[in-house]
Amino acid sequence: MAEIPESHRDLLDAQTLSLATIDPAGRPQVTTVWFLAENGLPRISLNTARKKVRNLRRNPACSASIFDPNNAYRYLEIRGDAEIEPDDDYAFADRLGAKYGADVRAIDGPGETRVVVTIRPMRINAVNLGG
Amino acid sequence: MAEIPESHRDLLDAQTLSLATIDPAGRPQVTTVWFLAENGLPRISLNTARKKVRNLRRNPACSASIFDPNNAYRYLEIRGDAEIEPDDDYAFADRLGAKYGADVRAIDGPGETRVVVTIRPMRINAVNLGG
Repeated sequence: MAEIPESHRDLLDAQTLSLATIDPAGRPQVTTVWFLAENGLPRISLNTARKKVRNLRRNPACSASIFDPNNAYRYLEIRGDAEIEPDDDYAFADRLGAKYGADVRAIDGPGETRVVVTIRPMRINAVNLGG
Repeated sequence: MAEIPESHRDLLDAQTLSLATIDPAGRPQVTTVWFLAENGLPRISLNTARKKVRNLRRNPACSASIFDPNNAYRYLEIRGDAEIEPDDDYAFADRLGAKYGADVRAIDGPGETRVVVTIRPMRINAVNLGG
């Protein structure tokens, strides 16, 4: 499995991640989401009512980019397949919420559910355009 | 045609743009590139030897995201089709280079050519997660 190089591992502490998925028409869509690094990989909590979850269930191919907020030329891209696991009890969502000081349960509507998305890396690009 | 709202038009002056394209396997790939705003839209100069040009020629569906370097929660996403025009004489590449104080001709190898990519917007998402 591809590994995140030491040079870019600090980006796992960043605040947001940009997730590119493929929509039903085969077109790319990109959204920015909260994430939490666990076991050296970014993991995302998604409300299953969201279009990006439907996209990933149909086509798990995705790309996650994390940009250095202090250096617009430095970023990390992880390409791979999304592995989607249920998070019905908000176990992961609560850990994610702690990173942001937020109550993820309060963000969701009644009856909505959560999943954890982990990207299994096929290719990792650690980029520093200025370096 | 979708328009960039006034609230996010300042992002057209940002330094980089993240371009999501679809590779031959139907998977998303994201790269960060220089761009120049002309006629209210971001335009990109690409060396035709690059994989993203081949991706766009095969499938023009793409997504361009511009992140506010000072606010990780604020970004603009433009989804649409890439229109690819030749830039054999580097007319656009020279204007782009002026934005960055760079000589784009010196970046390219002998015999390489450039195109200008303009995204014809089908949908624009002006996002402020914090707002």
